[in-house]
Amino acid sequence: MAPPRLYLAGPEVFLPDAAAVGAAKAALCARHGFAGLFPLDAALDLSGLAKPAQARRISEANEGLMRSCAGLIANLTPFRGVSADSGTVFEVGFMRALGRPVFGYSNVLAGYVERSHAYRDENRTHPDADAADVAIEDFDGAENLMIEVAITSSGGHIVRTAVARGHQMRDLAGFEACLLQARKHFRLDA
Amino acid sequence: MAPPRLYLAGPEVFLPDAAAVGAAKAALCARHGFAGLFPLDAALDLSGLAKPAQARRISEANEGLMRSCAGLIANLTPFRGVSADSGTVFEVGFMRALGRPVFGYSNVLAGYVERSHAYRDENRTHPDADAADVAIEDFDGAENLMIEVAITSSGGHIVRTAVARGHQMRDLAGFEACLLQARKHFRLDA
Repeated sequence: MAPPRLYLAGPEVFLPDAAAVGAAKAALCARHGFAGLFPLDAALDLSGLAKPAQARRISEANEGLMRSCAGLIANLTPFRGVSADSGTVFEVGFMRALGRPVFGYSNVLAGYVERSHAYRDENRTHPDADAADVAIEDFDGAENLMIEVAITSSGGHIVRTAVARGHQMRDLAGFEACLLQARKHFRLDA
Repeated sequence: MAPPRLYLAGPEVFLPDAAAVGAAKAALCARHGFAGLFPLDAALDLSGLAKPAQARRISEANEGLMRSCAGLIANLTPFRGVSADSGTVFEVGFMRALGRPVFGYSNVLAGYVERSHAYRDENRTHPDADAADVAIEDFDGAENLMIEVAITSSGGHIVRTAVARGHQMRDLAGFEACLLQARKHFRLDA
């Protein structure tokens, strides 16, 4: 049987060493019986295209790639704010709607409530700060409940790992834990 | 013909006056020939349920509600960081995968690149700051390209409006502009 294809969502596509991180993830996927597929942002020929056309081509390629995959693992480590990278979150919702299992990890231990309070405290004087009376949803989760439940409904949970500063975008212990959850889902251990 | 149902995604469910904002949005929907449907976070009886069960019930209700809707309008105003509320973004991806049109607005004029640089400058000393060598995607958009293209492919564009501080979570000019885009999509002007 061909190994199940997993779409590997995450903001590491923006790292200067994205290819190396991608190769490490793909190797872990292979070791656990999966084929890991990366967003195609960097792999496409976009020469001669204006920015909107570039964006459209990347989006079409990635949506097509998602539809070709049996599941998804998302790097949900907070990115430029309290929550995960918005492109990654879009992709979690996309695969969830297709009925495919989604898994995810965060290389920050703090939950959504704790991170939101920290953000609010640090951005008190900032014009974009959310006001003190805006509710912070509290379901003991690592992320907004829609994401959290999509993952628990797939048989997993958001894996939270305490990772040292400077390594949060690259550490793969949580990613490997997601692969074990995916193995269970796809009954690769049976 | 029954008015098309639109799922109204956005973090205003967390406002203390969420019901009033919701009523105002619903009234605008009706005026433009739509039925506006809100996430059901606040409308469900969750008594006696532990937090994970509460989250699951809300998620199931909202996923079901999305499947019952013909399209979505998202409030993509930055929320607790550079990007939109993660629950809202999940829902944009969800509806996109179902092939339903998605529209969105942001009550902040600055684009993704400008906001990312501002975040980086303001959070220089913060442990979660993204390093200077992490790429900031630049497609002249208001959000990550997956969200941007999902909306342009629906025939719209992310409506950006300069809204005064303190009103960014409630101003509905951008929302109404999205309703006009949706009217075109559903040929309500024909």
